[in-house]
Amino acid sequence: MISITITGTGNVASHLYKAFKVSPQVEVLQVQGREKPGFCTEDEFAFLGSDTIPDAEVHLLAVSDRAIATVAQVFTGKTGLVAHTSGNTALDALPKDLRRGVFYPLQSFTTGRELDFTTIPICIEADRANDLNLLKRLASVISGEVVSMDTQHRQELHLAAVFVSNFTNHLYYLGERLCIQNGVSPKLLLPLIQETAAKVAHISPMEAQTGPARRNDKATLEIQSRSLGKGTIKEIYDLISRSIIETYEPKL
Amino acid sequence: MISITITGTGNVASHLYKAFKVSPQVEVLQVQGREKPGFCTEDEFAFLGSDTIPDAEVHLLAVSDRAIATVAQVFTGKTGLVAHTSGNTALDALPKDLRRGVFYPLQSFTTGRELDFTTIPICIEADRANDLNLLKRLASVISGEVVSMDTQHRQELHLAAVFVSNFTNHLYYLGERLCIQNGVSPKLLLPLIQETAAKVAHISPMEAQTGPARRNDKATLEIQSRSLGKGTIKEIYDLISRSIIETYEPKL
Repeated sequence: MISITITGTGNVASHLYKAFKVSPQVEVLQVQGREKPGFCTEDEFAFLGSDTIPDAEVHLLAVSDRAIATVAQVFTGKTGLVAHTSGNTALDALPKDLRRGVFYPLQSFTTGRELDFTTIPICIEADRANDLNLLKRLASVISGEVVSMDTQHRQELHLAAVFVSNFTNHLYYLGERLCIQNGVSPKLLLPLIQETAAKVAHISPMEAQTGPARRNDKATLEIQSRSLGKGTIKEIYDLISRSIIETYEPKL
Repeated sequence: MISITITGTGNVASHLYKAFKVSPQVEVLQVQGREKPGFCTEDEFAFLGSDTIPDAEVHLLAVSDRAIATVAQVFTGKTGLVAHTSGNTALDALPKDLRRGVFYPLQSFTTGRELDFTTIPICIEADRANDLNLLKRLASVISGEVVSMDTQHRQELHLAAVFVSNFTNHLYYLGERLCIQNGVSPKLLLPLIQETAAKVAHISPMEAQTGPARRNDKATLEIQSRSLGKGTIKEIYDLISRSIIETYEPKL
């Protein structure tokens, strides 16, 4: 049995709470935050900064990146391991006088969406080997994909995640907007979106690439680019098309 | 029973053949092409331009966009409906002396991947109402999502598809490349890719957007952009980040 507290009231805190709460191997002693979230009970909740934080083996900080350093101060004097959950924040952002760690689940968390944690990679980091081991045991309770990774590699993985998730979602938005502007139902795009994502589990995106830019079909590229007018969406069309063409250019 | 022929030996031809072949409501009389593909039998195959094309109710042209007009000439004098399968090609690209139509399945077809056609939208178009009706009957055999759409709307939908599929796949490629360059397993990105795609079936991409650009977190944007060096990938990072920021800017 590993005892933990969770600091935060947002999506990451909520999803971690729910995942650990159903496990007999983990006890969630407390949730701390600026206001009581809906996901935990009154008894489990304490206001951040109150002096009632129990001694847990691991304190998970599921707060915004810029709040990590400040919130971590609250745990000064605690003997437990304090781990933040950010992809982009260095282990060193935590005060040196704490037992420090990182517990980063690589997923996009949204209110109201159930997630299967078992396939979500959890990237862990700690100053000391026994702390890393503790985080590994904790992560293994909910995930089958636990990876030890230093800050630099985690930040690079997080940047890759920005491309495949944040930026991809924006392309979904742009595609939907084109449909709506033209009186076509954006729902028609959904099977294509799902298949495009499903496919890369089986063949590499390098092989999976199709479309006018892949064929370097200059006539179609020109017509489609012109039809987009002059805004940022046209710049995106031209730039990603150019990037695809460059990717498949024969290297001299 | 609707009789058809299929012209083409690529992915679209192969997937349409397999989908229709298992239906008792459709008879595939012939596959035409420049060389016999693996997916049909010797008896079913005829070389393109041989004078043995049977009279079918519908001749589906699953050939590259630029070959459509030329290949369609082969069907001069035929009484059946000749329909191309391209998202981006006008109905008018087919010769006027034919009964003309369009049968565009909105999906990304890849060799060796089985597809469930029942959820794939098929966009149909024809000069005449009874021909449109015939295409509707044919499409309904394999798909539950048959949409009548003129050339302009279909081309706009195709352009939206370029954003959510072709461009998205390129972002997967860039994310994978970042991982590989940095010694991180790109497989770690797969659950995130799947969830990002699955999510937009339930909430709009406008609501689903997360990440540094969504928060207009200038410090992170600056650090991540700088870490990408000077190539096209940095331009993509900066441009899509700017587009996301613009999307969520309060409108004055």
